[in-house]
Amino acid sequence: MTDPATLPSSDLVDLLAAICDIESVSGDEAALADAVEALLSDQPHLEVHRDGDAVVARTTLGRDRRVVLAGHLDTVPLTDPPNLPTRLAGEGDDRELWGRGTVDMKAGVAVMLALAVELGRPGAEPVADLTYVFYDHEEVEESKSGLKRLARNRPDLLAGDFAVLGEPTSADIEGGCQGTIRVDVTTRGVAAHSARSWRGENAIHAAAPILALLSGYEAVQVEVDGLLYREGLNAVGIRGGIAGNVVPDACTVTVNYRFAPSRTLAEAEQHLRELFDGYEVVVTDASPAARPGLDDPLAAEFVAAVLDRTGGAPKPKYGWTDVARFAELGIPAVNFGPGDALLAHADDERVRVAELAVCRDALRAWLVGA
Amino acid sequence: MTDPATLPSSDLVDLLAAICDIESVSGDEAALADAVEALLSDQPHLEVHRDGDAVVARTTLGRDRRVVLAGHLDTVPLTDPPNLPTRLAGEGDDRELWGRGTVDMKAGVAVMLALAVELGRPGAEPVADLTYVFYDHEEVEESKSGLKRLARNRPDLLAGDFAVLGEPTSADIEGGCQGTIRVDVTTRGVAAHSARSWRGENAIHAAAPILALLSGYEAVQVEVDGLLYREGLNAVGIRGGIAGNVVPDACTVTVNYRFAPSRTLAEAEQHLRELFDGYEVVVTDASPAARPGLDDPLAAEFVAAVLDRTGGAPKPKYGWTDVARFAELGIPAVNFGPGDALLAHADDERVRVAELAVCRDALRAWLVGA
Repeated sequence: MTDPATLPSSDLVDLLAAICDIESVSGDEAALADAVEALLSDQPHLEVHRDGDAVVARTTLGRDRRVVLAGHLDTVPLTDPPNLPTRLAGEGDDRELWGRGTVDMKAGVAVMLALAVELGRPGAEPVADLTYVFYDHEEVEESKSGLKRLARNRPDLLAGDFAVLGEPTSADIEGGCQGTIRVDVTTRGVAAHSARSWRGENAIHAAAPILALLSGYEAVQVEVDGLLYREGLNAVGIRGGIAGNVVPDACTVTVNYRFAPSRTLAEAEQHLRELFDGYEVVVTDASPAARPGLDDPLAAEFVAAVLDRTGGAPKPKYGWTDVARFAELGIPAVNFGPGDALLAHADDERVRVAELAVCRDALRAWLVGA
Repeated sequence: MTDPATLPSSDLVDLLAAICDIESVSGDEAALADAVEALLSDQPHLEVHRDGDAVVARTTLGRDRRVVLAGHLDTVPLTDPPNLPTRLAGEGDDRELWGRGTVDMKAGVAVMLALAVELGRPGAEPVADLTYVFYDHEEVEESKSGLKRLARNRPDLLAGDFAVLGEPTSADIEGGCQGTIRVDVTTRGVAAHSARSWRGENAIHAAAPILALLSGYEAVQVEVDGLLYREGLNAVGIRGGIAGNVVPDACTVTVNYRFAPSRTLAEAEQHLRELFDGYEVVVTDASPAARPGLDDPLAAEFVAAVLDRTGGAPKPKYGWTDVARFAELGIPAVNFGPGDALLAHADDERVRVAELAVCRDALRAWLVGA
């Protein structure tokens, strides 16, 4: 191992640029994890642990409550030509840092790293103990998730009363998250040469009612803990046919159902099985929804402290995030971080740097009880 | 080049086994073409030409009519494990030769090679001049067709008054052939993250009416020159979707229309454009149908000679064959050859060897005016 990069922690924008410029596409997070570990290990008020390319740092101040601040270190692949190194553009409050990871989610990671350095030092005593969790493999299949691995290897390190995940929310509070389930719905037929098609049964034609059902489906909107969630049911893939002269004997429609936290995963699956009764239905991927959890006392303090600075009101989170994984661990969690989620994964990914300070200041105010 | 294999022309079954055992998957016909060229060049009554891996042999007896006997040398790929070398199984009239190419269409080629050696020798004078055409690249895309190349390079060699193509027909006469046209019918939508699907328009859902139309389509049956053709309209492929969390912005249904010789290619395309009015329709492949052509005098003599030996009645050909290419050249053509077309391309491809002699004898009787 070479010496890890030294991260500049005194300026939020410099820090964000530095951690973005250390490329960390999923599976290649080691260099960034090394740099993060080195920075945190330099802080005498933190106890640091490493698990694969995840880094966990904790205060041990003996507080009766513990807050978890979490973010993933990995990004989706770069564009071609690469959208790194980062570049700063614009003036004043409109300054934006462009590049892969600036939104999803190194801006949130930068805010949390800056707080990790600051809170716990003399004069910046937090009201709760703090656990920082920076982890690998969030942008890939669930089986590789660094957070899932941590929960299996060291559940003690993840313990806490409330968690904030620094996913991009444009500095809004987004509570809970939708669940997501994917199923393959398959029709069967009988293959035949297309010149004698009456000898076969066309499986693609047999999928007509499935597409008609999806096309006519009206997704519900559901209020959960005061937030309105909007569901969605979509074909995200379809495939059938093996050759230009063969009546196909199978056709598979891949359906993605995004469901509100009012449904359990089992209920969501049951809903799909009822909708597609009579067809082969195979679940290929599933993650539960998470309730907003804003009725928790720590959450209420958090919401009050943030809204005092940002205005606005809590919103539902539509995308699936690791708040659901914290919810499974019994830890209420919300999303709160700089950056516009619609620019996540985008070729023109960029963050308004002014949002970094907004998020840091709101979190600091809450955590020091100002 | 090594010396070409010597083909045993005195026994039909030996000859068929020999030309099957020289593998000739499309693109790899050279060794078989060499052997065929060597055999035909040994016959003093034939004038032999080579074009790529096509071999043309002609008698020049000064007859006022010329008959073309044609067959392709290539096969589809072997099975795994390979269905070659050939093996003979069964007893007496039930003997079958198993292996790739035995049906499609080296059985027909063997019959024609045997006739090429025999007819034109003293004591076996044909009533018409004869042209034998053995060509490459029939089982692959039309642009590679050896017969198409010959028609371009040496149309004079293909000239004739009537053509018999030795495709497998179980020794029945199959007149004409269906046309075939393939189109891609595409729907467009607007991509969005599936967690916020209301921001998008789902192109797969938009394909529902296309599948409903195909599912409900009733194909016609059409009589042409006394033969009944049955059409077919089928989705042979469908694809859409780029990722499990993206509302797809495009979906393409590949449709194959097999049409009767009562329609021109232009009329078939027009029919599809009317059916799929409002969608993007792109023709990806098209071959015209061929009328049976059994009203031609030479055809009538041929039919009489064959039916005198085999019984039965002429039938329509459903699959597309190169008779359509001869029809385009203005040469009436029929399919007539040993082997069950349903076993063409099959893993258990095999031919009843008794059919070889039936076909040879019927063709010989017609050609010598017996």
